[in-house]
Amino acid sequence: MDFDRRDILLSAAAALVAGSSGAARAATGRPFGYAIVGLGQYGLKTIIPQFANCAHSRLAAVVSGDPAKAARVAAEHGLPASAIYSYETFDTIRNNPDVDIVYVCLPNSMHAEYTIRAARAGKHVMCEKPMAISVAECEAMIAACKTAKRKLMIGYRCHFEATNLEAIRLASSGAIGKLRYVRSEHGFVMRDPSLWRLKRALSGGGSLMDIGIYALQASRYLTGEEPVAVYARESTDRSDPRFTEVEDMIDFTLEFPSGVMAGCYSMYSANQNRVLVMGDKGRVELEPATRYAGNRMWTGRDGREQEVTPPATPHKTQFAGQLDHLVQCVRTGNEPIVSGEEGLRDMRIIEAIYRSAREGRRIQLGAKA
Amino acid sequence: MDFDRRDILLSAAAALVAGSSGAARAATGRPFGYAIVGLGQYGLKTIIPQFANCAHSRLAAVVSGDPAKAARVAAEHGLPASAIYSYETFDTIRNNPDVDIVYVCLPNSMHAEYTIRAARAGKHVMCEKPMAISVAECEAMIAACKTAKRKLMIGYRCHFEATNLEAIRLASSGAIGKLRYVRSEHGFVMRDPSLWRLKRALSGGGSLMDIGIYALQASRYLTGEEPVAVYARESTDRSDPRFTEVEDMIDFTLEFPSGVMAGCYSMYSANQNRVLVMGDKGRVELEPATRYAGNRMWTGRDGREQEVTPPATPHKTQFAGQLDHLVQCVRTGNEPIVSGEEGLRDMRIIEAIYRSAREGRRIQLGAKA
Repeated sequence: MDFDRRDILLSAAAALVAGSSGAARAATGRPFGYAIVGLGQYGLKTIIPQFANCAHSRLAAVVSGDPAKAARVAAEHGLPASAIYSYETFDTIRNNPDVDIVYVCLPNSMHAEYTIRAARAGKHVMCEKPMAISVAECEAMIAACKTAKRKLMIGYRCHFEATNLEAIRLASSGAIGKLRYVRSEHGFVMRDPSLWRLKRALSGGGSLMDIGIYALQASRYLTGEEPVAVYARESTDRSDPRFTEVEDMIDFTLEFPSGVMAGCYSMYSANQNRVLVMGDKGRVELEPATRYAGNRMWTGRDGREQEVTPPATPHKTQFAGQLDHLVQCVRTGNEPIVSGEEGLRDMRIIEAIYRSAREGRRIQLGAKA
Repeated sequence: MDFDRRDILLSAAAALVAGSSGAARAATGRPFGYAIVGLGQYGLKTIIPQFANCAHSRLAAVVSGDPAKAARVAAEHGLPASAIYSYETFDTIRNNPDVDIVYVCLPNSMHAEYTIRAARAGKHVMCEKPMAISVAECEAMIAACKTAKRKLMIGYRCHFEATNLEAIRLASSGAIGKLRYVRSEHGFVMRDPSLWRLKRALSGGGSLMDIGIYALQASRYLTGEEPVAVYARESTDRSDPRFTEVEDMIDFTLEFPSGVMAGCYSMYSANQNRVLVMGDKGRVELEPATRYAGNRMWTGRDGREQEVTPPATPHKTQFAGQLDHLVQCVRTGNEPIVSGEEGLRDMRIIEAIYRSAREGRRIQLGAKA
């Protein structure tokens, strides 16, 4: 049962492959329209250009607090004036039949509000990670989408990324024997102290909410298990102007039911992006592991000597796979492989990590987690 | 003050360099004679051949419970019959002026007894790691050598190994910025369930006592700091015939006063031998990190692209450096850079690691540690 989710991931990948040439083709039709909420770096520079790589998704609207920027982006992408929303007019998106899905690319503290408003407006929702800033918010988001009978998916793009999919396949195939531990280090040097990610009211937390969540995710999808306990320690220089409100480095250890351990580091003070899965017969290592592009992987017994070229995915990029997956779920009625429940699982663990670091003790994760 | 020990290591390395061509040459003379106690794999196959690489050390006697093996080894190395001891006749080594130093290469549980008996026989002592199987034994060993006015050194060969010395230099030089964390994984697949290392009465513990101690050592010598707290979790399949008495995998996290964290894995179920030191400007990585030979290192910002060739040491091998260092300490009256006190520091932390794993909680390390 522990391997259910990993199997689902692999099945989903297989279904995507099949979908490109087989049964799922029946479920195609006009591309679905996405409204991008938030024209910050991620929405504007990362997501919007990806519609060019999609088979089933297109840009249909933008939502921004900056009318000039919204008008410029709309013009660049051939959207009519009626496809431009402010946060004040956002709820009228219910009247726009071109918009099927709302993609929430806002600061973390606004994820819950805009997911719930989108669901109430009758739209399916893609919400960027972290899903929200508390378990309570995640639960409210899931409930709102359920009430509105709309799909909710979290922007966990690595589930559509070739290197990570191949790592999951290798780890679950027995190729490296019985799994013993996972290590993952995710961090970058945060330079600008003024960024919203460093303001607790907007971010809900520091490096863990932003980049460390990739290490947590990787530990879970590579083992296919849910952790039963966590221990965490924080190391933050509070005299550093970047870290007056949120944590810099947090180190957490997850215990899995099979005996696998995961040791994860998250930080805003060093550049690291790597994942190691160690089995009793060998290892799989990814570095960089979870970047937008250029991820690489190796497998072997005592070194990185053998680089692995993962099989191509049916989608052009991980982003296109992510965007199109939600469309296909809406069409088929399936749950997204990274649903709101998946975001909630991470948030329960994140709350436990913060609590462990605060209280200096091991926290057992309940059956619900 | 935290960096004292690291500075001492570097000074010792510098002194060795100077010693090869300068002032310390005055302290030379006839090579000192070592008695090897224990003709197991390590004493026989690893240490004895290393005397050929030494400038100041030679094989002078062997101590074994196997008379035929002892006679064969003595013959191979041109030792007279009077240089062969059994465990019963060991104490008469006091009457052998050819023996200056006793090197204890026995199972861990016998380190204390033979170190104390050697000191009482008037010999200086090199004791293999781990120093013993308890803090109390370590303290008794130190006291015995102090009473006998004999030197006591622990066989921490990595302090004489070129790659590790260069890593210490890089980490302390500022080359990778402010240190943030150390990761070290040390393990190998233990195959033979009958080995003494898997019998608690002889080993005192499992992988941590044997191979994980390298990760602990590396965390300390690379940061130059002493940990203030530790948390550990064990993961052992007790139904595995190898692990009925001792642990397989143990994961421990060390907190250092500067805010540096160290995450270490020790195991008998996977082959790993690596060390990473991460600073806010880059990293130093070693793999393999602490092997007898063939260690390699890389430095860089986001990858291993730049391999580093460490400067040559004045000694031919790490083992020769270790063996000759104790001779030089005896000649000059200096304390070994890896004295009994250093072995005791590790043992205090090891006891805390085991206690943390047993009790499932963070253990603060006292001022004494």
